[in-house]
Amino acid sequence: MHTNLPTSFQTFLDASEILEPPSPPIIDQRRRFTSTPDIILQPNSVSSVQKILCFCHKNRITVTPQGGNTGLCGAAVARQGVLLSLSKLNKLREINLADNSMTIEAGMILQHAQQAAAQAGRLFPLSLASEGSCQIGGNIACNAGGLNVLRYGAMRDLVLGLEIVLPDGTLVSHLQPLHKNTTGYDLRHLFIGSEGTLGVITAATLKLSACPQTTATAWIGLPSIDGAVKLLTKIQSHFDERLCSFELISRFALDLSAKFSQLTKPADADWHILMALTDSVPDTDLAEQLAEYLYRQGYENSVLAQSEQERQELWALRENISASQRNLGTSIKHDIATPIARVADFVTECSAALKARFADIQIVCFGHLGDGSLHYNTFLPDIMGNEVYEYEDIINTIVYRHILKHCGTIAAEHGIGKIKNHWIPHVRTEAEIALMRAIKAQLDPHNIMNPGKLLP
Amino acid sequence: MHTNLPTSFQTFLDASEILEPPSPPIIDQRRRFTSTPDIILQPNSVSSVQKILCFCHKNRITVTPQGGNTGLCGAAVARQGVLLSLSKLNKLREINLADNSMTIEAGMILQHAQQAAAQAGRLFPLSLASEGSCQIGGNIACNAGGLNVLRYGAMRDLVLGLEIVLPDGTLVSHLQPLHKNTTGYDLRHLFIGSEGTLGVITAATLKLSACPQTTATAWIGLPSIDGAVKLLTKIQSHFDERLCSFELISRFALDLSAKFSQLTKPADADWHILMALTDSVPDTDLAEQLAEYLYRQGYENSVLAQSEQERQELWALRENISASQRNLGTSIKHDIATPIARVADFVTECSAALKARFADIQIVCFGHLGDGSLHYNTFLPDIMGNEVYEYEDIINTIVYRHILKHCGTIAAEHGIGKIKNHWIPHVRTEAEIALMRAIKAQLDPHNIMNPGKLLP
Repeated sequence: MHTNLPTSFQTFLDASEILEPPSPPIIDQRRRFTSTPDIILQPNSVSSVQKILCFCHKNRITVTPQGGNTGLCGAAVARQGVLLSLSKLNKLREINLADNSMTIEAGMILQHAQQAAAQAGRLFPLSLASEGSCQIGGNIACNAGGLNVLRYGAMRDLVLGLEIVLPDGTLVSHLQPLHKNTTGYDLRHLFIGSEGTLGVITAATLKLSACPQTTATAWIGLPSIDGAVKLLTKIQSHFDERLCSFELISRFALDLSAKFSQLTKPADADWHILMALTDSVPDTDLAEQLAEYLYRQGYENSVLAQSEQERQELWALRENISASQRNLGTSIKHDIATPIARVADFVTECSAALKARFADIQIVCFGHLGDGSLHYNTFLPDIMGNEVYEYEDIINTIVYRHILKHCGTIAAEHGIGKIKNHWIPHVRTEAEIALMRAIKAQLDPHNIMNPGKLLP
Repeated sequence: MHTNLPTSFQTFLDASEILEPPSPPIIDQRRRFTSTPDIILQPNSVSSVQKILCFCHKNRITVTPQGGNTGLCGAAVARQGVLLSLSKLNKLREINLADNSMTIEAGMILQHAQQAAAQAGRLFPLSLASEGSCQIGGNIACNAGGLNVLRYGAMRDLVLGLEIVLPDGTLVSHLQPLHKNTTGYDLRHLFIGSEGTLGVITAATLKLSACPQTTATAWIGLPSIDGAVKLLTKIQSHFDERLCSFELISRFALDLSAKFSQLTKPADADWHILMALTDSVPDTDLAEQLAEYLYRQGYENSVLAQSEQERQELWALRENISASQRNLGTSIKHDIATPIARVADFVTECSAALKARFADIQIVCFGHLGDGSLHYNTFLPDIMGNEVYEYEDIINTIVYRHILKHCGTIAAEHGIGKIKNHWIPHVRTEAEIALMRAIKAQLDPHNIMNPGKLLP
């Protein structure tokens, strides 16, 4: 299509900013989609991003922004045009201790952002499985969640300000760390979660917190999800924001992970909770308080981490679920949430419906019960590879029917991308979709930004 | 204009929903603007709101939503058409303890919302001066702030879901308490802070927290704002989210309030901090920890509340500033914020510039230093009444010039309304204003919703 693209970009970009599409081509995190862009651009500066978008806007060339390429819904897959890698825009611009804020560029890897905060004696709390390679811009574009949302909020809650290049190359910059600001419609939140369809996030000012000084980690075996929800309610009433993580793990998920990790299971039960409390005030007896509380409340099937090694082993059991389930083949994943009060009914009813349709289906169910958010991964034992996706629509239909019955969402923390956008009309009203289209048309009249993603 | 309005509305509303404009007419909180609507409607149900908007949309009749009429920027002042009072939509619909959420209607008074949460053993943390009469819908429409933002966030951060009637009468309802949900552009945040220009908020699902079990309250006299910012940074690093309020009060503001309140000043200093720490875990020695910390850090000019009465007296000194300053006449108020690190320079430079222009100007400066947010009220001693507004543009120009120099905002927590919308082009870019207009045009093509407010 655009065979003269390199020549065109050479007129205004540095040679180091223009890359040939690699061979073999870039595929996505789930090894499901292949990017086939005409060109890969890796701008060194925000002004290069502006020049690229201005040129693409004028010449109707599509642009797909890409961060760490760790997305699970195909939002960063480029079929044609420009694949815009933000990797070189990765600088720390400012840390402001009075405002507990940090301004960093979009291409900074999440782990580096965590480290930059730690070096300044602060915590940047977003934490998720791909933190070693995902980038802040992608985290914002997808409104990433993860392990610490209960205490610190999702990515949306951690953004104080954004710097954005609009599809026509215009720069909009609001990076000042303002903790209160209500001057007209809040456009920042439109860009958070917009998956690269409205412009390119080039930098962000993020909220920091005090570093935790104490951690208490407990594993509790329980007979039911309802029992786990009751425990959550009690712990939240008593420990409030000290509760940082409250993870649910099914017996099947734990069995897989324990075998893979070669670790002993901390408890024998149908359902398991791994919870972490943290406190930034030093010298508090948090572990003792938690132990006493669980004992008083009669939770006997529980283990408290007595050392850093024990804490790491408990977390390894949780974190290795994803890796361990690969032995079951390729899964159809669901990134869902319901009101916490309805998680138990959803799991019971949906699992029964799936088993009625596919007698031997295997369900790996785990996730962030403290947010009502589940990873609900389904495997068909006879199908190991990507052929399983032939059943995706049937399985999704069953799962999402139950999700909607229980007032839930089909996209909790992974976004919509290209695999779920045809579901948007089931979860948003016509008026809302019309408004989304009007916003998109105003900012991106030629539909160059990440076409085919997010919007139905 | 619309002399047949009562007859028209009688065809589809109950008689109790239609009110004559009262005599004397409704004036706003600051006694500055008079509402002169053709009719006042007070719907009993969400479906009545839908019918009203559908009718007004078809007949091009303007609609100004009004909650408790406590706004400070004139956003709820109706010049003509319908004044839509939400007061009768004031029910508690649901409290959900597992999700720590509460669904209430827009017309519920903030204090009643706090009480409903308390009765369920939870805290709804929004707290501000007009909480006895302001309504939740207005709080959301203006993104209200107040005293507990530091710990719990502003109204925006407390909204899990909204029910909205769009300008054409269409209902959009997302009241499920989902803690993670990213399905397309986030429209909820567009409506929060939109001041009734995009539709009518009829209900909301709000986040609740655990009730504080312990409070520690301290008053500290300091020689400078810079010193107060240093104290804030230390306290946040040590006590993190236990810090709930961190209020700044100038010597002049304290003198006024102490005289008015007939209370002794807790310290002699140019600047004062009133701070509150809270903890929801019972039996913690928070007051002792705070006293020890302040002593160790050398803050000798400080007082810790030793009883509930002492706590209330310290807060009375803070809360009576607004009432006490009325003796100075009518003020030109500023609801501003800067990055916390720049508050001191802003105050020094701006006060000098104002005094250079008006030698005898009096400045009552106080507010939420923990959020960088100030009430910066200016009085011209020779002018007691509303004639002072003749100087509003001159004074605003000086204040906002310094605010913008220090990367601040002209509207922290009171909104824009009709008194600041001509300033929007100074703080938002052309592209942003074009997008705001496109959003408005898509939802409200006949511009019936609260015209002349918020947008420039």
